[in-house]
Amino acid sequence: MFILINLKAYPRDPVAIAEAAADVDAETDATIAVAPQTADLAAVAETGVETWAQHVSPVGHGSHTGSSLAERAAEAGAAGTLLNHSERRLKLADIDGSLAAAERAGLDTVVCANNPDQVAAAAALGPDAVAVEPPELIGTGTPVSQADPDVVEDAVAAARAVDDAVDVYCGAGISTGEDVAAARDLGSTGVLLASGVAKADDPAAALRDLVTDV
Amino acid sequence: MFILINLKAYPRDPVAIAEAAADVDAETDATIAVAPQTADLAAVAETGVETWAQHVSPVGHGSHTGSSLAERAAEAGAAGTLLNHSERRLKLADIDGSLAAAERAGLDTVVCANNPDQVAAAAALGPDAVAVEPPELIGTGTPVSQADPDVVEDAVAAARAVDDAVDVYCGAGISTGEDVAAARDLGSTGVLLASGVAKADDPAAALRDLVTDV
Amino acid sequence: MFILINLKAYPRDPVAIAEAAADVDAETDATIAVAPQTADLAAVAETGVETWAQHVSPVGHGSHTGSSLAERAAEAGAAGTLLNHSERRLKLADIDGSLAAAERAGLDTVVCANNPDQVAAAAALGPDAVAVEPPELIGTGTPVSQADPDVVEDAVAAARAVDDAVDVYCGAGISTGEDVAAARDLGSTGVLLASGVAKADDPAAALRDLVTDV
Amino acid sequence: MFILINLKAYPRDPVAIAEAAADVDAETDATIAVAPQTADLAAVAETGVETWAQHVSPVGHGSHTGSSLAERAAEAGAAGTLLNHSERRLKLADIDGSLAAAERAGLDTVVCANNPDQVAAAAALGPDAVAVEPPELIGTGTPVSQADPDVVEDAVAAARAVDDAVDVYCGAGISTGEDVAAARDLGSTGVLLASGVAKADDPAAALRDLVTDV
Repeated sequence: MFILINLKAYPRDPVAIAEAAADVDAETDATIAVAPQTADLAAVAETGVETWAQHVSPVGHGSHTGSSLAERAAEAGAAGTLLNHSERRLKLADIDGSLAAAERAGLDTVVCANNPDQVAAAAALGPDAVAVEPPELIGTGTPVSQADPDVVEDAVAAARAVDDAVDVYCGAGISTGEDVAAARDLGSTGVLLASGVAKADDPAAALRDLVTDV
Repeated sequence: MFILINLKAYPRDPVAIAEAAADVDAETDATIAVAPQTADLAAVAETGVETWAQHVSPVGHGSHTGSSLAERAAEAGAAGTLLNHSERRLKLADIDGSLAAAERAGLDTVVCANNPDQVAAAAALGPDAVAVEPPELIGTGTPVSQADPDVVEDAVAAARAVDDAVDVYCGAGISTGEDVAAARDLGSTGVLLASGVAKADDPAAALRDLVTDV
Repeated sequence: MFILINLKAYPRDPVAIAEAAADVDAETDATIAVAPQTADLAAVAETGVETWAQHVSPVGHGSHTGSSLAERAAEAGAAGTLLNHSERRLKLADIDGSLAAAERAGLDTVVCANNPDQVAAAAALGPDAVAVEPPELIGTGTPVSQADPDVVEDAVAAARAVDDAVDVYCGAGISTGEDVAAARDLGSTGVLLASGVAKADDPAAALRDLVTDV
Repeated sequence: MFILINLKAYPRDPVAIAEAAADVDAETDATIAVAPQTADLAAVAETGVETWAQHVSPVGHGSHTGSSLAERAAEAGAAGTLLNHSERRLKLADIDGSLAAAERAGLDTVVCANNPDQVAAAAALGPDAVAVEPPELIGTGTPVSQADPDVVEDAVAAARAVDDAVDVYCGAGISTGEDVAAARDLGSTGVLLASGVAKADDPAAALRDLVTDV
């Protein structure tokens, strides 16, 4: 099971959460990764935790101002990148361009999507994984695996029909080990979380709970 | 064969081109459709030609300013709409939203895409057709069927692998009957044109040439 | 006083509201204008009411797909256009481009803005008017002139400091003649409304109430 | 004179250029600053050179994915940020939001603009400086001070008319000390450069040439 903690733009110290994640990762068969802001990629990677970017630009080196290069994320120690998160929706052509940039830089990729149709569309672009996050559940604390299990199963089926090498992750509302197990039972091989860990009083305890049944 | 003439924002009288298209449509087995600006949908539809919108917004009735509703395009007489044209690229989630809006309004849909991967992604969203338009050929007068026939065959294969009910059209650089025949021989069932007809001295003659071998 | 009714994408028949507006306009010293969707500009203009576009693109004739040309709005009978409405925010460079397009086409212009600083910025681009619409009041039914009269006075002062030929209108929450009078007393020479008229059971009655004290 | 070197997404080592800039800064009365990608802010700031971000997001801490926070840029050692560069155009409301974010974080700000009208608009939002960069000159090697000196003088006049506390910088095509002197003589107090230094064989030599007459 792959567990990706999106630190968003929370004020919390990213290194402290990364260290907690590295500790729990060492105790479990699950892989725990942390996605900080671009400016924090290097510091997070230095903790030894698997580090992900939250976004990379659909361009390579050149005359681009205010971009976040995949190459630069990789040099800072990132192993992968999120793309098309609901808080950073991209044009179809730019998802394709960012995936190409990530591949050139050796980054793994997870493309977020709203529903099974968009999961299938994202899978057709050849990412390593897609994450289904019904927008109405984001930040609610109600896991998609419980609120709408069909959407996860449909997303898994939709992605497989397009490309069975693409993993399906489950986002939106995951916060407990029970949610992670439910996501796995519905066919997903990973989960995306944010506030459940990144805003927890004790991130290590929150992570240990998540991997209880993995 | 489906032949869609995109009138873009050219200064030419859209009704004159629509009348020429209606005339030639009556002489051939091909279907000729015309896509004017939103403000011209009703006038073009009154000529009897099949009328398409160039874009519809990913929303329904409500508090939206400066939008182009699918419902309103349908009421004006449109039979379909282009989406995600290279001059009007959309977010993945908005292509999905605009397709849903078009379906509610009873409009047919063609989603444009750059390359076979994006064609597959667009096909996964369930439009009636996708159009492959390599951006480097748009407006060059060199047909994609000649400059890069593999991209058309790959696009047809990519769309079929996702959903064989989705037609594949061929855009970019089409201007002669020979180009249309080549597009058909590569597996596409329609073509998108703009300047080849919409800027022609004699649009009816240009259209007759296009349908020579159909 | 200038009263602009934004019909947004409401399902209501735009011509019926336009006819009511034309009737009330004839009874008062205020000018009442109606801003329908692009597809309805011609039908609304035929009622004789002053007709405005909700948006025009920052381009002229050419290879643009899915655009709304200022020239085309003018030909359909529009006298002016809104720009940068809170539901259609534009890049600074595009507001400038759309203003240039509107000027070429002979359209009057109102640029919407959130607060006095943005009002001053918009005024610096040389529109005919700016409209201040605090986003937190849009659709609330609480007029800005009552909830936050300072913002209107500050907006008037900010616009005048930049260019005293630019009128300041008042948007957000206006629904009664009392609101219109309050807006005028704070220095604005026009108001923007939407649902207060466009969703009223009796639009003509709603309009007559608005112009009671004008 | 303020000289800001935008490193864009060039492949060149940002620290080497930053060190060169720090050296030349120590030899001259001009202030030389360097704007790397977000991921390089800390490393560049450690050289002691004045460090600028290329962009900051119009948000504060919170649920934002793929953003570049002003607070985080400041913590990494940035003293200021560019905004609305021609390669990263922003909505008017977002320039305002990013300026507010930069002010909260204690960053200086330069807002880029195309022409004198947009310079005035940007000045009305209260940045520390605006930079006028006619898009047709960017990357040409022809300085705006030579190709179109009126645009610089008009920009200075336009900014002063709105807020005489706002400095005007000159971008696009600057590459020699002569260009810098010409920009100063036209009333600007700073220049923006990119390739002239960041792609130079010897960045320190290029910088020394720039400050010859300062």
